[in-house]
Amino acid sequence: MKIAILGTGMVGDALGTKLVQLGHEVRMGSRTKGNVKAIEWVKKNGAKATEGTFADAAKFGEIVLNCTSGVGSLEALKQAGSQNLKGKILIDVANPLDFSKGMPPTLTICNTDSLGEQIQKAFPETKVVKTLNTTNCLVMVNPSMLTDGHDLFISGNDAAAKAEVTELIKKWFGWKRVIDLGDITTSRGTEMLLAIWIRLMVALKTPNFNFKIVTES
Amino acid sequence: MKIAILGTGMVGDALGTKLVQLGHEVRMGSRTKGNVKAIEWVKKNGAKATEGTFADAAKFGEIVLNCTSGVGSLEALKQAGSQNLKGKILIDVANPLDFSKGMPPTLTICNTDSLGEQIQKAFPETKVVKTLNTTNCLVMVNPSMLTDGHDLFISGNDAAAKAEVTELIKKWFGWKRVIDLGDITTSRGTEMLLAIWIRLMVALKTPNFNFKIVTES
Repeated sequence: MKIAILGTGMVGDALGTKLVQLGHEVRMGSRTKGNVKAIEWVKKNGAKATEGTFADAAKFGEIVLNCTSGVGSLEALKQAGSQNLKGKILIDVANPLDFSKGMPPTLTICNTDSLGEQIQKAFPETKVVKTLNTTNCLVMVNPSMLTDGHDLFISGNDAAAKAEVTELIKKWFGWKRVIDLGDITTSRGTEMLLAIWIRLMVALKTPNFNFKIVTES
Repeated sequence: MKIAILGTGMVGDALGTKLVQLGHEVRMGSRTKGNVKAIEWVKKNGAKATEGTFADAAKFGEIVLNCTSGVGSLEALKQAGSQNLKGKILIDVANPLDFSKGMPPTLTICNTDSLGEQIQKAFPETKVVKTLNTTNCLVMVNPSMLTDGHDLFISGNDAAAKAEVTELIKKWFGWKRVIDLGDITTSRGTEMLLAIWIRLMVALKTPNFNFKIVTES
């Protein structure tokens, strides 16, 4: 499968690397072709890994993963181009975290709106599926590193796209439990989860944890 | 122990009832003495259950539980009176949820502030401990109703008060896992968790669930 990774940070690197290892052709996109981190990632990952602009990557991918910094996602996706995203599934992994005032970060969008919704509004012909944004990137690509079953959440307006993404993340990374929260407005729930996620990371002294939803028998 | 429950809703009823069953003297406070729900609760719970104004209850309690609706908590606590809360532990169970525009509710305070912080600021001589606010009231008083270990979170500026509350909720309700998130500003994390909590309640079709934090071995 041809997959676009938008963003050269830790999340893009982890997802892109894992997807190349699984045999996919992955193009990493960034603001400019020849981005230092993208070049390093390509060198590390061999022939199936390529890089280019956000538009190059989005055009290449049959499916697109938004791994850009949440505060820059809308601009990055604008550069990727609505024509290159049209009709495709966009897996939105980003959180609109503002680190500019130090730790802990706040959210630039929350409560009455979410990044997932803003992206869906800006790209109405793209099937935006919000998921993977509630775990650290190591857990994201290797959920079995944790000791117990635990949950991932998924939000989006297109039921078929959500079903497809659910199957993909199970197949790609070994996720077993994926809870469908509903339409893209439910991204508010998962993005706002970052407020406790950040504080748990400090309390637990590790980013390698996740939430398990425990119910009655 | 003499305990004040502020608020006559489901949470106050559940906590007050359980605490009476455990042998404590519990006074339920509301805006006016003789509140219909408070009277009903007293009738149901016998001699150890009494009711009165917020001030009556706060004066009575060696420890005070804020179970009022989050949007009305500051006003209710003002009526309870800073002199009646002075030096005491206030367990803040409330969430600042605004249901006035229908479901799902939004938060009236979040991201850069929290209800827990606002209460601590308004009552600097009271030891505000935020906890229990991330579960349904049935789970709150009976955590073993769920199938697996699961977590409660605690936030507050006073370490001794947090330790005391942790012991109390373990002893009272059987909680086993309580994660100390840090000072009262970490209430932002647990209050904002309500955004996914509300959506999980819809997706799971039950309010009887909780979060377990899963880590590496």
